[in-house]
Amino acid sequence: MAQKYVTRQEDYSKWYNELVYRADLAEHSDVRGCMVIKPYGYAIWEKMRDILDAKFKETGHSNAYFPLFIPKSYLSKEASHVDGFAKECAVVTHYRLKNAEDGSGVIVDPAAKLEEELIVRPTSETIIWNSYKNWIQSYRDLPILINQWANVVRWEMRTRLFLRTAEFLWQEGHTAHATKEEAIKEAELMLDVYSDFAENYMAMPVLKGRKTESERFAGADDTLCIEAMMQDGKALQAGTSHFLGQNFAKAFEVKFADKEGKLEYVWATSWGVSTRLMGALIMTHSDDEGLVLPPALAPIQVVAVPIHRTDEELAAISEKFDQLSKALKARGISFKYDSDDNKRPGWKFAEYEAKGVPLRLAMGPRDLENGKVEVARRDTKTKEVIDFDGVESYIVTMLDEIQKNLLQKAMDFRASNMKKVDTYQDFKEQIDNGGFFLAHWDGTKETESKIKEETQATIRCMLLDQELETGVCMVTGKPSAQRVVFAKAY
Amino acid sequence: MAQKYVTRQEDYSKWYNELVYRADLAEHSDVRGCMVIKPYGYAIWEKMRDILDAKFKETGHSNAYFPLFIPKSYLSKEASHVDGFAKECAVVTHYRLKNAEDGSGVIVDPAAKLEEELIVRPTSETIIWNSYKNWIQSYRDLPILINQWANVVRWEMRTRLFLRTAEFLWQEGHTAHATKEEAIKEAELMLDVYSDFAENYMAMPVLKGRKTESERFAGADDTLCIEAMMQDGKALQAGTSHFLGQNFAKAFEVKFADKEGKLEYVWATSWGVSTRLMGALIMTHSDDEGLVLPPALAPIQVVAVPIHRTDEELAAISEKFDQLSKALKARGISFKYDSDDNKRPGWKFAEYEAKGVPLRLAMGPRDLENGKVEVARRDTKTKEVIDFDGVESYIVTMLDEIQKNLLQKAMDFRASNMKKVDTYQDFKEQIDNGGFFLAHWDGTKETESKIKEETQATIRCMLLDQELETGVCMVTGKPSAQRVVFAKAY
Repeated sequence: MAQKYVTRQEDYSKWYNELVYRADLAEHSDVRGCMVIKPYGYAIWEKMRDILDAKFKETGHSNAYFPLFIPKSYLSKEASHVDGFAKECAVVTHYRLKNAEDGSGVIVDPAAKLEEELIVRPTSETIIWNSYKNWIQSYRDLPILINQWANVVRWEMRTRLFLRTAEFLWQEGHTAHATKEEAIKEAELMLDVYSDFAENYMAMPVLKGRKTESERFAGADDTLCIEAMMQDGKALQAGTSHFLGQNFAKAFEVKFADKEGKLEYVWATSWGVSTRLMGALIMTHSDDEGLVLPPALAPIQVVAVPIHRTDEELAAISEKFDQLSKALKARGISFKYDSDDNKRPGWKFAEYEAKGVPLRLAMGPRDLENGKVEVARRDTKTKEVIDFDGVESYIVTMLDEIQKNLLQKAMDFRASNMKKVDTYQDFKEQIDNGGFFLAHWDGTKETESKIKEETQATIRCMLLDQELETGVCMVTGKPSAQRVVFAKAY
Repeated sequence: MAQKYVTRQEDYSKWYNELVYRADLAEHSDVRGCMVIKPYGYAIWEKMRDILDAKFKETGHSNAYFPLFIPKSYLSKEASHVDGFAKECAVVTHYRLKNAEDGSGVIVDPAAKLEEELIVRPTSETIIWNSYKNWIQSYRDLPILINQWANVVRWEMRTRLFLRTAEFLWQEGHTAHATKEEAIKEAELMLDVYSDFAENYMAMPVLKGRKTESERFAGADDTLCIEAMMQDGKALQAGTSHFLGQNFAKAFEVKFADKEGKLEYVWATSWGVSTRLMGALIMTHSDDEGLVLPPALAPIQVVAVPIHRTDEELAAISEKFDQLSKALKARGISFKYDSDDNKRPGWKFAEYEAKGVPLRLAMGPRDLENGKVEVARRDTKTKEVIDFDGVESYIVTMLDEIQKNLLQKAMDFRASNMKKVDTYQDFKEQIDNGGFFLAHWDGTKETESKIKEETQATIRCMLLDQELETGVCMVTGKPSAQRVVFAKAY
């Protein structure tokens, strides 16, 4: 790897972009704002998806699939919803192309104009509640607990791979309930599913909180979120879970008969995470040598590289790793043996480092002779030469240790970059260094937007699990019921 | 289930539509031509997807994801490709809505017109080969073996749930190779994967064949296919695998340096199956009582229903089924115990029959006393009362037998509805009764389209595995190299 890459210190943003290419995760396509998710990146996303999907099913949800297109009039039915999404959507207006009469090529056929334009879904509340209308008559039809894995489109003007793209992949849960309490419980439950996934699989600690009114999802009564801290101290919203009240039920006239036969509007939630999580994963753990992956999400958990001069040596080393391969596969550990003769071991080392493979094994003729193998950890970049006998259980222990170490490291980083501030002066001096700031706020939109304007920092959330501490707003001096979390964010 | 449903005999097409609703598989959405795949239908599709996905990976393929949108100019680069798809596509022309000045609602913002229109992908050859161009320089970069699970849109005018919808879900494999031979081998390999899946999981026998030139995929040099026979004797194309030659490589200028450094165009294949397979599955096995599912694809393989008067009886029966549930789960058999007290056993029986659950167990107080359980097979509609002890291994055997029986039944049906015909007179007299007809054809487009015009029958394929038998065309009397398969088709 002769190429020199920029370090995090030098240019965090450029480091990120280079890393996504270097680890072969994704690339920009020629279609404005749309990315190509390459096989290695997609393999990580598949792991995320499968783990989340199992958790959704464990908590009683089923998958379904709703149309990609939303009639313009549906989007308009919930007033704040359309305000939130109309400004950035892809609009289908025609359904046919034809050959231009002047022979200049293919043009849109003006005769094939749609009566009503279709919007490529930016999110599916409206199209789904339009269906729920027909599915729900009585309390017996509730709850409905449905999730959808899908692509969505939001016409973002400034895009970044995984973090903000015009098209992205996500899941969106949409549930319908007979009572407000049940819907709120559901929104909280799914937030817990997300935070559990973030911490125990992504090794990424998250704050669980509630958005302020101005940061809420368009159409929600309450938006819960998980917020993670990236290595540059910026916040990344990693998932949201919305209590939608009866807003969509009212917009689409969805009522149910309760046990007494009385008609009531249905209560709703929606919740989602997206390929944005890929960006969060990358920026939480990776270093200047490339991607660092937690073993729980690594498509290749262990890679082995032979170091040899002769074919006999290669054959003997291959036999050893072949043996190990079977043993690891039986334990569900993904193992790759890279004996490709066209590439030098040093090149391979750098390659698997860039791709974040948690453990790398290497064996040369002398190791073979002595019954040894070299084991290199990606997270700490430490190496050990150990007995080949017993390497299998060593690997199991080590993968577990790496997973824990990455979480601990991220937790330590966050702890040392999260502080209380009490004056706006202090806040303004420190905010550019990054980090999360717990500060008092008077609860008004005016103060919130003044702070945003002057510092680019936003209120990430009001923490769910914190002792309330009253105080005075750092900007206006008015009373404050609790500290809230400020940060600059992705 | 008081409602009376139409039988296959009375109206096959209506029977199909009613069944899709009755088994709760899918429904029409308000968006023209787009369907909602409901949880039970989606659960079957998920099983199909997971099995196919594992097979693709076993044969060396990786998943990736490419943009939903295709610039109009890309689609135009391969001449026959654009001819095939331009007439039925959704065109995105704008990227923003705004409030109408007269307050009448939300309208398309004329200021947000795209410079170049985007087509919602009807298939992804063009956008993918535009990427491959940058991925391929040398023979070392080949082969590329990629699959994508995605939604696609083709603006069909006459739609039917699963069989023909404007939006559908599918997988599309796109591979790039250094040699023609390797690409042809790949196309054949994937056809075998499809036919193996159809026969061993869907219990649906298929003919493997080659399409005539006029039935080829737009942009292919050769289209291989699997064709299945539905219960009304019509053919359904269940999957296709295309040898694309160098057509897309030439359209997108994709060359590689071979071992001697000489530049050559890359060879390509693409192959796909879609949610259409759901329609094929339904029409192969189902009967007038509803869906019949092969155990390999059934979301619920075994359902158990208690029949009781008292709570004590229910408790005792539940204990038995609880025990069985654990034993079956340990064997990977999906089991549902339906003790919902709001519904009568008879209602449940009809419901699970309509949903095609392969085995239904029932236990009443007397069964409990005698250590018995009633087992009902969905495929044969036979019932047996057997000892509860040992029911677990009985179930395992029975599921296997049902899977085999469904395939055998479908094979017998096909065998008795596939015949050789030698005169056009015979052909015309018999074609309306349905079935596959092996007949001689002179190999010309003219004769092919004359037959289609006069009988609505098409050449489904030229069989891959058949002894060649020369003869004379049933229409023109000109020489024919082999019999081909004619049928009316979905």
